[in-house]
Amino acid sequence: MIKPLFWKNQRLFIVDQTRLPGEYKLIEIQDHLEMAEAIQKLAIRGAPALGIAAAFGLVLGLKPFRSSSKEIFLSELQKIAAFLQNTRPTAVNLAWALARMQQVAQNLTNETTNSIWQALLKTALQIHREDIAMCRKIARHGQNLLPDDANIITHCNTGGLATGGLGTALGILITAHQSGKQIHVYVNETRPLLQGARLTCWELNREGVPFTLISDNMAGYLMANRKISAIITGADRIAANGDTANKIGTYGLAILAKYHGVPFYIAAPSSTIDPLINSGDQIRIEERSGAEIREICGVQIVPENYSAISPAFDITPNALITAIITETGVNYPPFQFRQ
Amino acid sequence: MIKPLFWKNQRLFIVDQTRLPGEYKLIEIQDHLEMAEAIQKLAIRGAPALGIAAAFGLVLGLKPFRSSSKEIFLSELQKIAAFLQNTRPTAVNLAWALARMQQVAQNLTNETTNSIWQALLKTALQIHREDIAMCRKIARHGQNLLPDDANIITHCNTGGLATGGLGTALGILITAHQSGKQIHVYVNETRPLLQGARLTCWELNREGVPFTLISDNMAGYLMANRKISAIITGADRIAANGDTANKIGTYGLAILAKYHGVPFYIAAPSSTIDPLINSGDQIRIEERSGAEIREICGVQIVPENYSAISPAFDITPNALITAIITETGVNYPPFQFRQ
Repeated sequence: MIKPLFWKNQRLFIVDQTRLPGEYKLIEIQDHLEMAEAIQKLAIRGAPALGIAAAFGLVLGLKPFRSSSKEIFLSELQKIAAFLQNTRPTAVNLAWALARMQQVAQNLTNETTNSIWQALLKTALQIHREDIAMCRKIARHGQNLLPDDANIITHCNTGGLATGGLGTALGILITAHQSGKQIHVYVNETRPLLQGARLTCWELNREGVPFTLISDNMAGYLMANRKISAIITGADRIAANGDTANKIGTYGLAILAKYHGVPFYIAAPSSTIDPLINSGDQIRIEERSGAEIREICGVQIVPENYSAISPAFDITPNALITAIITETGVNYPPFQFRQ
Repeated sequence: MIKPLFWKNQRLFIVDQTRLPGEYKLIEIQDHLEMAEAIQKLAIRGAPALGIAAAFGLVLGLKPFRSSSKEIFLSELQKIAAFLQNTRPTAVNLAWALARMQQVAQNLTNETTNSIWQALLKTALQIHREDIAMCRKIARHGQNLLPDDANIITHCNTGGLATGGLGTALGILITAHQSGKQIHVYVNETRPLLQGARLTCWELNREGVPFTLISDNMAGYLMANRKISAIITGADRIAANGDTANKIGTYGLAILAKYHGVPFYIAAPSSTIDPLINSGDQIRIEERSGAEIREICGVQIVPENYSAISPAFDITPNALITAIITETGVNYPPFQFRQ
């Protein structure tokens, strides 16, 4: 199973996803600063993986304070959690994992500093294990929705690299393939950062799932000309009413799916659902640098003084979503998610 | 005015569009073989420009036969025209220009071979001049459709580089800007070959029209979040019922426009209308190499053995088109184009 990070001999390693598919390279992350840098340059990305990364980032950042006074330790915990929280604004999993870690510390204030740190490490490992277990459940629920012979379009990367392992949307497709279904995946390259081309194709190739890479503007053509069974994507944040923030382009895909009568599925762990947000218009969209559009894989396409924008996500309203697949099952509209 | 090619001192020069925006380089084209190569590698592209290029390609290819017997000359004319016709299959302008050139020769079979060649050259120059005049008329008709303060999304390149000069869809925007309207253009980069990023931005920058470069998957986000006044694209072939073949991604844009209630306009000279084709499903779509998707600007994104497809065009059905703007005026549905 492809995993984006792992803890081994008291050290944390991540796969540097900026180098895939050309090179599979592990980097050791020493502290929360290096973790924040890895998150910001997208060496590790994907909403569920970000939660796990943030938990481990907190563990690493607190490592030097294991013998400090409890006051210093808890104060550092708050600071590092707030710092990690601010690395990326859209995915809810960051906040979710950090809140859970802080709760663990709060429940153990009578213990020694070192015990609290050990409990935090245990929790980070548990968040990771739980995420993989959730992915397995999502895959089981999701694959039941697919016909035995299915052409699927997917967007961005929602595989093992984006989660604890296995993946959400991609985990469904890999699991359906492994269970004997004839799955063919059309992979949107996913500009600007090409996570579909670079990461999803790499994962599908390793897992032996047949796929075809397309540019993002071909999805309509495929729906009109080839039998597309479904579109499945992940999610970065889901509002209580089912409105879903996901990689830029998802909204357009959902409209195309509606127009062609193709089912449009979202697959995500329930930790992606933010019950504090009623609808999508309350979700903050990360605006990244226009340089991401002016360049492709380090090649300058247009001069630096040309104006360009790079909203990283868009919001797909619940009316365009056929079902949201979580570890608890398949949710159909009207979506009513409560804590 | 930006032009993709020009005839000077009995020699033909084209702008090598594969080098833009980094370098503005002219290449001399010596014969029909070099013209075919330039067409196939997209050094010259854009449906109207291809018609002009084919006419000059024929003139250049026949140059060595100006003193040959009429029989040989006319036989070469057929061969070279058929050869140029096959360089790209979708744009109707190639066939249209070559048929017109052949008609000129047929009308002059009593003249000397050299006179026929001179008439062909004159016709090629006239096709070029007429195309610029048509672009001016299209621009005049089209700009009346735009509000005084307009945010427009466009796709691919439909500017001076794609035509004889000025352009079709882009000519409308440049002309509206020059006439004092507040025009802001969102330019789809237009994967795989990035004609939007490389060529349209370069033209808009030279003409001083404000623009913002986006990736192709952002159009839905913009329509939902910013006031988009219209989408305007060109066309490579228009069927008698108005169904329109244009750069891959156009169909998806048209669906997004319909969903958001944004007008969707096609701008093209009437030579783009193929009255022999009743509807879009009879238009042959050029399938280019998957390598165009695996690579971006010469950079290998995924390994060569990964499957990828590259349909160069898609068909937008007439029901999604608000109006088709030609040099004769603005055509509203139901479209009924006859010869």
